[in-house]
Amino acid sequence: MIDENGILFILSGPSGVGKGTVRKELFNRANDLAYSISMTTREKRPGEAEGADYFYKTNEEFEKLIEAGQLLEYARFVNNYYGTPRKYVEDTLQDGKDVFLEIEVQGAMQVKENFPEGVFIFLFPPSLEELKNRIIERGTESQELVLKRLKEAQNEIDMMDAYDYVVVNDDVDAAVTKIQSIIQSEHCKRERIAKQYKQLLKEE
Amino acid sequence: MIDENGILFILSGPSGVGKGTVRKELFNRANDLAYSISMTTREKRPGEAEGADYFYKTNEEFEKLIEAGQLLEYARFVNNYYGTPRKYVEDTLQDGKDVFLEIEVQGAMQVKENFPEGVFIFLFPPSLEELKNRIIERGTESQELVLKRLKEAQNEIDMMDAYDYVVVNDDVDAAVTKIQSIIQSEHCKRERIAKQYKQLLKEE
Repeated sequence: MIDENGILFILSGPSGVGKGTVRKELFNRANDLAYSISMTTREKRPGEAEGADYFYKTNEEFEKLIEAGQLLEYARFVNNYYGTPRKYVEDTLQDGKDVFLEIEVQGAMQVKENFPEGVFIFLFPPSLEELKNRIIERGTESQELVLKRLKEAQNEIDMMDAYDYVVVNDDVDAAVTKIQSIIQSEHCKRERIAKQYKQLLKEE
Repeated sequence: MIDENGILFILSGPSGVGKGTVRKELFNRANDLAYSISMTTREKRPGEAEGADYFYKTNEEFEKLIEAGQLLEYARFVNNYYGTPRKYVEDTLQDGKDVFLEIEVQGAMQVKENFPEGVFIFLFPPSLEELKNRIIERGTESQELVLKRLKEAQNEIDMMDAYDYVVVNDDVDAAVTKIQSIIQSEHCKRERIAKQYKQLLKEE
């Protein structure tokens, strides 16, 4: 009835908060959501497919895309670039499909800069104690390193102000339900749809 | 965990759009929502109770409350005042409970003026044809009157811009689910809760 564009949703939050688990459960439930496919300069591994696992580029191609503003965010790990291609996101949104991007806080801040119309969701730890436990469980060895990562996480939490929503991850199912509510309610936002609805009544 | 205030939700929309039906179904599903109780100068009828059906006031009392800015909205029908008392709404919100108010467009505009922090949801007819049918079904007799009410409804739709959300009422169940999503996601809005969450981490 309404020819509506998709919305880009960005899920982020401090290391150890459980972003990956929440994203997996969300995709188990939602089948009308496109996962943002990353671009990389690392080599394609056996079993991987272009446009499914990654978009594969040479170093030179990737750097040209950076210069042309064609990446919503990017970073370099172990001599390879990884990033979020603007074109894939924009094409998918124009097809009327929402895109979901799960990403570290630093990357989310880049996306915010390059795509401010996205909806930014901050996943929040149930408590500092719990976050510490999760960081320890992930196998960071020394106490010094745990404290360093915890300090980083606290700094990341201070970046919460750039986000539209905060969802506490005290329970994965509850957190995913909240994210689904956010997705549905964003599609009801008056500024997104009022114009088209008014048009609809005039056309009749 | 978080000591959060309730939120005032206002459901409105043109005559005949089905606000009452949607509100009833919402209250069938939700048990953690307070329905806004109106104040009136009309006499208490047998079986009605103060503070359950209405808050009953004399004409003089009501007019004093109007002057004191103690009504979020009010109107006069058949020589009686009807209105939404600010105090009941604010007390309920402070108890951490959401308040839900279903109201005509004119009343909603008054609430917007007096309580801009409310969340305003506009219920939208699936089509002009459907709205016309519903107006006819309600028993407005002459074609002239139907056209007049339809014209009014179109004017009311132009007030949509004052609202935060637009929900199309093509299906009552779907509309209620969307409203529930809006309620849940509004509680995840960063500007409502970020301060308290940050505090939480510092206290530990």
